[in-house]
Amino acid sequence: MNDDREDVLAERVLFHGRVFSVLERDIKLPDGGVVTWEVVDKRGDSVAIVAIAPGPEVHLVQEFFGGTGERGLCLPKGGIDDGETADQAAARELSEEIGLTGRFELLSTMDLSPGYLTQRTHLYLATDLVPAHRDGDETHHLRPVRLPLADAVAMCVDGRITEARTIAGLLMTAHRIRAE
Amino acid sequence: MNDDREDVLAERVLFHGRVFSVLERDIKLPDGGVVTWEVVDKRGDSVAIVAIAPGPEVHLVQEFFGGTGERGLCLPKGGIDDGETADQAAARELSEEIGLTGRFELLSTMDLSPGYLTQRTHLYLATDLVPAHRDGDETHHLRPVRLPLADAVAMCVDGRITEARTIAGLLMTAHRIRAE
Repeated sequence: MNDDREDVLAERVLFHGRVFSVLERDIKLPDGGVVTWEVVDKRGDSVAIVAIAPGPEVHLVQEFFGGTGERGLCLPKGGIDDGETADQAAARELSEEIGLTGRFELLSTMDLSPGYLTQRTHLYLATDLVPAHRDGDETHHLRPVRLPLADAVAMCVDGRITEARTIAGLLMTAHRIRAE
Repeated sequence: MNDDREDVLAERVLFHGRVFSVLERDIKLPDGGVVTWEVVDKRGDSVAIVAIAPGPEVHLVQEFFGGTGERGLCLPKGGIDDGETADQAAARELSEEIGLTGRFELLSTMDLSPGYLTQRTHLYLATDLVPAHRDGDETHHLRPVRLPLADAVAMCVDGRITEARTIAGLLMTAHRIRAE
């Protein structure tokens, strides 16, 4: 144990639901003090995909969000299923939500709120898009939306797109295209 | 009730902890079906601040994240206390974590993972920075880091900065400065 680093000393499960667990972790701070923090565990990471068509245009989905109770535009995304790699999950989610497949490249592995969420989101860039069989049963509340990447970036900057991972993914992709 | 929109029909508390509650919400979908989703409620929104000094340089903090168990660089941020406005929380957090105050402007109100989190983060740009009294007791595990905005943007793009709100805030600020 390195004395000037933090360590998770112990962990207890406070709640175990269908989707979430709430954990209580005892954490040693660099000054030697121990704090107890509540942490939410979604039991598995997720993927999100910036799917770029010529233009450049980007494929987003409009969906209803159960947490905030509002509709919004966001990247196609979803959880990594048991036995699946992140790459496979990205291809499956893009197929299910947009009906496309393509060439996938990992842009970043992001955290949402790493102070209290264990979940990470693997952000993929998808290019060379072609139609895929649209599988799955989760598309009934999603509406695919295709729009110019510049318009999507403008919607991030003026507050019409609000999901942090979507803003991060769109602006990273615009940054990369500008640099090429 | 608008039949082609979603509605939250009912909500039950499954768990009530010190920081989090887990709720179960019955949600009517546009096709008339009803689904039950688990939602995490952190009971209150948060603020994050992109504090820009001449250069332009940006003030970040390195901290330990209890959720992911790792250290990382992120924007100064924190919860809005009872009786506090978002503006007041932004000024307090920047003072506590960086020791500065300045002129604050709301850039965006972001959601983290709106499908299952109720929490929103009000993202502020802070400029015209001047020293503030450093109050509070939460700084012992935070290390302020000041670096060129261009370097911080490069760290977002190459994966060294991983927190989605921090990536979103830094790239939105760089976009805005470039447009000016």
